[in-house]
Amino acid sequence: MKGNFRDLYLIGLCLLLIFSGVTCAGLFTKTPAPEIDPGFCMECHQRVTPGLFQSWVESKHAKKGVHCMTCHIDHQAAFEQKSMVFPDKCGECHPQQLEEFKKSRHSIGWDRMRGQGEYLGIPQEIRTAFCERCHIVQKRCNSCHTSHRFSLKESREPESCGSCHLGPDHPHKEMYETSLHGIIYKLTQNPERAPRCVTCHMPGGTHNSSFGIARGPVGTRSVVVDLKEIPISKEEIARRREEMLGICTGCHSRRFAKEQMDNADQVKEEAFILQEKGKEVIRDIEKEDLLYPSLTERMPHPTEGRTMVLADPQLYIGTSHIERLFFTMFKFHNIRVWKSGYHFSPAYTHGYGWSEMQMDLIEIQEESKKLIELFKEKKK
Amino acid sequence: MKGNFRDLYLIGLCLLLIFSGVTCAGLFTKTPAPEIDPGFCMECHQRVTPGLFQSWVESKHAKKGVHCMTCHIDHQAAFEQKSMVFPDKCGECHPQQLEEFKKSRHSIGWDRMRGQGEYLGIPQEIRTAFCERCHIVQKRCNSCHTSHRFSLKESREPESCGSCHLGPDHPHKEMYETSLHGIIYKLTQNPERAPRCVTCHMPGGTHNSSFGIARGPVGTRSVVVDLKEIPISKEEIARRREEMLGICTGCHSRRFAKEQMDNADQVKEEAFILQEKGKEVIRDIEKEDLLYPSLTERMPHPTEGRTMVLADPQLYIGTSHIERLFFTMFKFHNIRVWKSGYHFSPAYTHGYGWSEMQMDLIEIQEESKKLIELFKEKKK
Amino acid sequence: MKGNFRDLYLIGLCLLLIFSGVTCAGLFTKTPAPEIDPGFCMECHQRVTPGLFQSWVESKHAKKGVHCMTCHIDHQAAFEQKSMVFPDKCGECHPQQLEEFKKSRHSIGWDRMRGQGEYLGIPQEIRTAFCERCHIVQKRCNSCHTSHRFSLKESREPESCGSCHLGPDHPHKEMYETSLHGIIYKLTQNPERAPRCVTCHMPGGTHNSSFGIARGPVGTRSVVVDLKEIPISKEEIARRREEMLGICTGCHSRRFAKEQMDNADQVKEEAFILQEKGKEVIRDIEKEDLLYPSLTERMPHPTEGRTMVLADPQLYIGTSHIERLFFTMFKFHNIRVWKSGYHFSPAYTHGYGWSEMQMDLIEIQEESKKLIELFKEKKK
Repeated sequence: MKGNFRDLYLIGLCLLLIFSGVTCAGLFTKTPAPEIDPGFCMECHQRVTPGLFQSWVESKHAKKGVHCMTCHIDHQAAFEQKSMVFPDKCGECHPQQLEEFKKSRHSIGWDRMRGQGEYLGIPQEIRTAFCERCHIVQKRCNSCHTSHRFSLKESREPESCGSCHLGPDHPHKEMYETSLHGIIYKLTQNPERAPRCVTCHMPGGTHNSSFGIARGPVGTRSVVVDLKEIPISKEEIARRREEMLGICTGCHSRRFAKEQMDNADQVKEEAFILQEKGKEVIRDIEKEDLLYPSLTERMPHPTEGRTMVLADPQLYIGTSHIERLFFTMFKFHNIRVWKSGYHFSPAYTHGYGWSEMQMDLIEIQEESKKLIELFKEKKK
Repeated sequence: MKGNFRDLYLIGLCLLLIFSGVTCAGLFTKTPAPEIDPGFCMECHQRVTPGLFQSWVESKHAKKGVHCMTCHIDHQAAFEQKSMVFPDKCGECHPQQLEEFKKSRHSIGWDRMRGQGEYLGIPQEIRTAFCERCHIVQKRCNSCHTSHRFSLKESREPESCGSCHLGPDHPHKEMYETSLHGIIYKLTQNPERAPRCVTCHMPGGTHNSSFGIARGPVGTRSVVVDLKEIPISKEEIARRREEMLGICTGCHSRRFAKEQMDNADQVKEEAFILQEKGKEVIRDIEKEDLLYPSLTERMPHPTEGRTMVLADPQLYIGTSHIERLFFTMFKFHNIRVWKSGYHFSPAYTHGYGWSEMQMDLIEIQEESKKLIELFKEKKK
Repeated sequence: MKGNFRDLYLIGLCLLLIFSGVTCAGLFTKTPAPEIDPGFCMECHQRVTPGLFQSWVESKHAKKGVHCMTCHIDHQAAFEQKSMVFPDKCGECHPQQLEEFKKSRHSIGWDRMRGQGEYLGIPQEIRTAFCERCHIVQKRCNSCHTSHRFSLKESREPESCGSCHLGPDHPHKEMYETSLHGIIYKLTQNPERAPRCVTCHMPGGTHNSSFGIARGPVGTRSVVVDLKEIPISKEEIARRREEMLGICTGCHSRRFAKEQMDNADQVKEEAFILQEKGKEVIRDIEKEDLLYPSLTERMPHPTEGRTMVLADPQLYIGTSHIERLFFTMFKFHNIRVWKSGYHFSPAYTHGYGWSEMQMDLIEIQEESKKLIELFKEKKK
């Protein structure tokens, strides 16, 4: 009975549309949102994209009357924007979150990517399939808040962060999962037993995910900069370290937490010293003009020009083999050592980090010796 | 009390067996299944293999009266076949599943393995511990439907597929788990929120897992073949792509889904072009006779003979170092780039794929230069 | 009201403390535990380390009246020992577990580490962040029984073991997770369906985790030693194998289980033979004095002195490149082959093991050829 009634309703709706002169084509003319009945979207999308529809039905948005047009404006706008909804739109209802988000590095993700040598050096297809999928976080709140369910519970789980923060050059997900923090959380699913990513990096739900990050002069030698590339002061760094220690002391004694942080600072310094040894060997080789291809034989660096770039923003394309060995050393292994120092993953600090760096150095030294033996006489 | 009663019962049963002339040895004579009371198997196996017994007790089989002898025939047959039950046996009750299975590549897994150079080149122990554990899918429905519980729910989870589809040369499991699809499914455990392997590859429960797979001329240059090694037509490939898009549009717009697929096609083509650059360098080295060991110094390829094989069915045993570098490039890294293009894992497309391929190429070029410098003069 | 009452209580307690001459400093004087009211700890720690406090509240310890002072003795002792509680303390209530633990290799983890060349060769910061985090198992029952909840359920999950047993050189966690055992357990979370680590290695809850480990002369050539470094007899090894088979037969037939074990023994032997081929190449290079740096140019091995060490206790620091290639072969790849033989992970036996070993051998042979070509004439 209910089904039959519904069918009649649908037929009636169609007749109404036809006789009122509204055709499907008409939908693509720019009509202000409020004049379109939200129920209208449902009629089609319930059938053509049922998964998407069902996610929305179960969302808090649906319960509060936030419907398709609230975010997508109208069918024409949605079509033109490929259904994207930008943070400013979300901020109309969630102003505090937008404001906090704009203080985080997430909010400059896309712009920073567009200026990076690595991005500039690869085909557009790979950019689309790789870089842009994550860096679009600047333009999409649904990078973390999966559409159209927008579940708070889901977005707070480590898996959400891990959709981008993983892989050879920033294995935050892997480091967390192999730390006691991650293991206890996996066992208990209880954020009061062990921290999740958001516990330390977005405490109290702040959308400024740069909270408490105090990388920098304390044992590092790399300068921490703010969103405008201005170096952050020692005082600010010290303040952020205190912020983070304030989180640790929820479970640990301040003494213990500070010891762990201090040790991580020193781990970072040790790894930096080791990395620099690799750099020195390669600089000597470059002075002897033994790089193949040489700096003049290769494409110039997209942002740095015709110079040898070791460590950021070094590329992995078209360089010499000895530089490529250093790329692995600094980009994959050094980063694992020090980042897992702060994330407490012994396997990544040493097994996937420190020991690999030592082996990289052996390889770099061997390559240097071979290059000298093979080509130095010739150059003379 | 209950235990004592049970002991008496067992003693009684033994006496009965002894006095009726049935000894344990007698069990191994070929007796037709129906004449043996299924309860008879239980008496022993409940004790000697309790885990296995308990799994069966909880199965739908047990509830429907499908017992040991239904599948294993009798004790003698089970002993001779090492307890294996072949798909044709399962097909007696599940004919549609068997028919669909026989259309899938799963159904030729064992036979294809037996003719592969890689299989032929390794010791039997490694074959047993590796190749055969997965390729036996041709002969065992319980590769996916774990015995003796045969839970449909379990077999549909990504973990089931991931028991074979993982590892350096076909990390489907890893690519899925690092895609938004896999992450949302992990978070929600709800197949209506995000697809599992079976959603796209076995829709509607079909056991033809080749559904919708349209790899081939569209941006690939490798020919897709059917089970009899006959190339599949462009029309058939286009039809399969449409099949797959029909799945995507459950949640995504057709435009979005098609864009993603087209981009993956292009990613595949880009990776192929890059791979070919590596091949060219090695072909030049081979022309100069600088492979060590040379083609005449080494064991011939088990299926291709005394020729240099680059890409499938290339081996990783006993080749020159420069060929081994290419093995890694094509077998691990290229496959990750393009397969994760279709599985939407940015980390595998780039971090474990494209950037590794670029570094492989640098290594291959460097090795080529060294080989020429070291050995070319000598050869003259 | 309740809050106000509590405040009054706290003020009252403070006044009481002040007027009774007990100041905060006084707490650090060594006072015997029983004289301090356990409630006293709670007053502060409920606020300053709420996560820790909450874990204890939910523990069986709390329910049974085991409180802070029961384990930490007093505030001064806790401060001096950095809150550590040693196994002998736990053994006061859990004597059987302590006794069993002392038979396991876990109980010599710290001492063995302190004598290892690898440990001696790295900076203290890395030791702290890596080695010591796991090897401290000798001194901390809460390595597995996470404090302060001490949940038996949690400690029995594979994740607990996996906090240390993971990573490139002992990927037990990864091998288990990619075996059918691990996959079925992950799917079902039911230890009656598939074994967890403790099912086979700590059956019946024994804390002697060396149960059933029968590595040794059966197809291995490496001698199994007991805790005092005394070789274990063949008879004892055979007995342990039987112990382990006794676990397997809970689900599998003895014939099947024995076949699997025998095959793993053979896999181990095959991998050993392959590894020795790599060793031979390097020994020849060393005889020709072609190692760079040579044994006299480098730091002596911390425990073995000025000698070339191939396989345990070989280091990855400051050796020649050809030795470093062998390090990867024996330490990462060989171990994966044979250990996953016994853990039934095809991906690790072959993909991350056997095929990598074969490629290591190619690289070692190539390096040898280059070293001879480049430096042999010169040496003459």
